[in-house]
Amino acid sequence: MPAINLLDKFSRFSDQWSPKVIAELNGQAVKLAKVQGTFVWHDHAEEDELFFVVRGTLLIDFEDRETVRLEPGELYVVPRGVRHCPRTEGEEEVWLMLLEPISTKHTGEVEDARTVRTYDRL
Amino acid sequence: MPAINLLDKFSRFSDQWSPKVIAELNGQAVKLAKVQGTFVWHDHAEEDELFFVVRGTLLIDFEDRETVRLEPGELYVVPRGVRHCPRTEGEEEVWLMLLEPISTKHTGEVEDARTVRTYDRL
Repeated sequence: MPAINLLDKFSRFSDQWSPKVIAELNGQAVKLAKVQGTFVWHDHAEEDELFFVVRGTLLIDFEDRETVRLEPGELYVVPRGVRHCPRTEGEEEVWLMLLEPISTKHTGEVEDARTVRTYDRL
Repeated sequence: MPAINLLDKFSRFSDQWSPKVIAELNGQAVKLAKVQGTFVWHDHAEEDELFFVVRGTLLIDFEDRETVRLEPGELYVVPRGVRHCPRTEGEEEVWLMLLEPISTKHTGEVEDARTVRTYDRL
């Protein structure tokens, strides 16, 4: 396996809210996603989820805590079972690296038009 | 938990080859390390290990495959059981983000003067 360059991987897709798997380790998947706008409220009952911002500003709303604001080079772990809703501001497209168990469902038990059932690999 | 800013966390320590835990999820630890020079040959029998370069150039030597060269924004997963030796070039200090199971021993079953037994948290 060669080195994985994040910007090279980001250049290979343009669809939003559709994470792509770039690596796997210890039952976890490393994914990249481009997002813009407001996602859907959901949680993952058994999976903690790490958000790392590569470009732009990501906000994550919660029901039980203050909104988290993530700039490039910042990360946050959403604990399992915590309802959250990622969103961006204005027209900015935000680039994310995600880490979560391979088994994680995209929108938990919530169904949305953007729900991805099978993750592409890059 | 507030957002975790990598550069802020890096500013809080200066010792080399001594990873600091900045987050945990799904039994994995996210660690930061500053490194310079050549580490020790070792492997982790049961743990895959992700290296992500934040600053500088990291080389990882292997016995069974070509050396991997990682620049900032690049990552590599060293599979479990694969002997490897991270190193840097010249006098450059290299900043890394690591991901591996919380149980991972720093230098596997190898003992080295730099072996860390208890990881600090930042």
